[in-house]
Amino acid sequence: MSEAPHITFDLDTPGVSTGHLVVPKGADCEALSLPVFSLNKGEGPRLLITGGCHGDELEGPIVARRLVEWLPERQTCGRVIILPVLNPPAVQAWSRNTPIDGLNLNRVFPGRVDGSVTERIADAVSRLLLPAADTVFDLHSFGPTWDFPPASTTHPIADVDLMAQTLQMAAAFKLPVTLLWDHHDTHGMFDTWAHSQGKVFVCAEFGGGTVGADNLVIYEAGVRNALIALGLVEGKAEFPTFRQQKSGQTLETHPPDELKSPAPGIFEPRCSVLDEVNQGDLIGILHPMNSLSGESIDIRAPGTSVVFAIRSGAHVDVNEGVALVARPLNT
Amino acid sequence: MSEAPHITFDLDTPGVSTGHLVVPKGADCEALSLPVFSLNKGEGPRLLITGGCHGDELEGPIVARRLVEWLPERQTCGRVIILPVLNPPAVQAWSRNTPIDGLNLNRVFPGRVDGSVTERIADAVSRLLLPAADTVFDLHSFGPTWDFPPASTTHPIADVDLMAQTLQMAAAFKLPVTLLWDHHDTHGMFDTWAHSQGKVFVCAEFGGGTVGADNLVIYEAGVRNALIALGLVEGKAEFPTFRQQKSGQTLETHPPDELKSPAPGIFEPRCSVLDEVNQGDLIGILHPMNSLSGESIDIRAPGTSVVFAIRSGAHVDVNEGVALVARPLNT
Repeated sequence: MSEAPHITFDLDTPGVSTGHLVVPKGADCEALSLPVFSLNKGEGPRLLITGGCHGDELEGPIVARRLVEWLPERQTCGRVIILPVLNPPAVQAWSRNTPIDGLNLNRVFPGRVDGSVTERIADAVSRLLLPAADTVFDLHSFGPTWDFPPASTTHPIADVDLMAQTLQMAAAFKLPVTLLWDHHDTHGMFDTWAHSQGKVFVCAEFGGGTVGADNLVIYEAGVRNALIALGLVEGKAEFPTFRQQKSGQTLETHPPDELKSPAPGIFEPRCSVLDEVNQGDLIGILHPMNSLSGESIDIRAPGTSVVFAIRSGAHVDVNEGVALVARPLNT
Repeated sequence: MSEAPHITFDLDTPGVSTGHLVVPKGADCEALSLPVFSLNKGEGPRLLITGGCHGDELEGPIVARRLVEWLPERQTCGRVIILPVLNPPAVQAWSRNTPIDGLNLNRVFPGRVDGSVTERIADAVSRLLLPAADTVFDLHSFGPTWDFPPASTTHPIADVDLMAQTLQMAAAFKLPVTLLWDHHDTHGMFDTWAHSQGKVFVCAEFGGGTVGADNLVIYEAGVRNALIALGLVEGKAEFPTFRQQKSGQTLETHPPDELKSPAPGIFEPRCSVLDEVNQGDLIGILHPMNSLSGESIDIRAPGTSVVFAIRSGAHVDVNEGVALVARPLNT
């Protein structure tokens, strides 16, 4: 019997503590030690910040690492736990899924203590860190094959009060977009599990493409704004610039808002994120690449909407998503 | 004995022709058919345009595909051959190297007719397409894990006349940067082989990160400018905007100009491409991710230079490149 999942220090220790969340070994790999930071200033909000769920979304770990250096001088109350990298094997491989078992950590919550490594990570987080928080910020981005605006996102939640609290928390990031994202593939998400436990959980999906200095400034400002709104630090919200003033919208998107490729080929984006489009406007072009004698295929907007995410130029299969559009949230 | 590499039509046919370059089957896979476009308007420059050498650099195939539609109305003389995708298996896998044999197509030229699939592609191109051209534009970008400005590049060439002609051709793209790039890893490059055959060969490395609509406009303008300079089409050069007027520099970079990571960890970029830096300026930060108790490590500029390429936020190994700096070409 291997050791149980545990944290190498007591989360109730006052002040700054650092150590590790130990995910026990299994048949597929040795134990993992995930670095954890805790800053306990007593009464107040209890916040968990995580990053690095997907190994090719590195904004989160970088911003989390910045907070580890920044918070000790700033936090005035409450408790903050930071786990910059949820999935070290995926981060080291620059891979969305864990290379060892091929699983997507964000689809296996709450995990299994006797499962494969991805399930064991989810189990350790669900069992040891989630109960210590009332609010969770999970710092994602949209990965290298899409362009996506800086946004805080959540999914529809059946509990009306928790939905309202979560949307309010998401809006407090004061990023260019707050998104209510309705999609079908939510089973096993960290969000879904945390919401079922009554937690306010905001999944930041900001970014996409290259992780650059400009994007990181916007990303970090968003997280700081949310810390101010929670009352953990003092200060005034900043409104970072993105694409010249295209900011401050709350949007919603539903399954039919995902535009799909009509054929296999190379997708050419013809618009940018946050562009406003009307029915028939050109979103992109699909170039079948098996012959140069045929026509390429236009992909057009189904109606008045905002281009929320657009696929990077890449080879896609038929029915693979190439863009997401959204509309103002109907509250 | 399998069939020999061949083109399914006669490149001497006047006007527009489309067909395929057939790369024969081998022990590792079936024959490949690479779509080829030819536009023969008789006397004049003979140009070969290729893209998709690396499967995660898709600007090239998209711009090449656009030219296939645009050129027939514009080309006034000479001969242009376009091969939008040199390496279909790599493009389909969004992989730099060919997934079948793991080889980098841009390191196996001139290839081998009885080699693995990557070598057979190089052989077919070297044997059948390269002799039909005096000038080659190979449309690369720098891949998804770096940020890189729109640039036309070449390497040092021993033949002084060919060096001068090649630099002049590269500058005719009129992109923000023309780069003379001295590095050690040039054996087997398409460039190196083409230069050895006396061809003017410009390797466009513009782009990096997400393939977006904005970048594609710049990319296509660069190629059109070069077509105008060659005399194949009529028109005036355009100077697309990139990062507010940071344009028109000719730079050089040498092996010591590659900054390397001092330790394994996550690299955080702290500047942007084309930023001018002085000795000691912060380029980025390396965050060791095995513990949160230690300090992160600053990576600073070795001297006055221009940040030419910067690694996206990503996990890197010790001694892995994280930035390239450059200086004005000393002519």
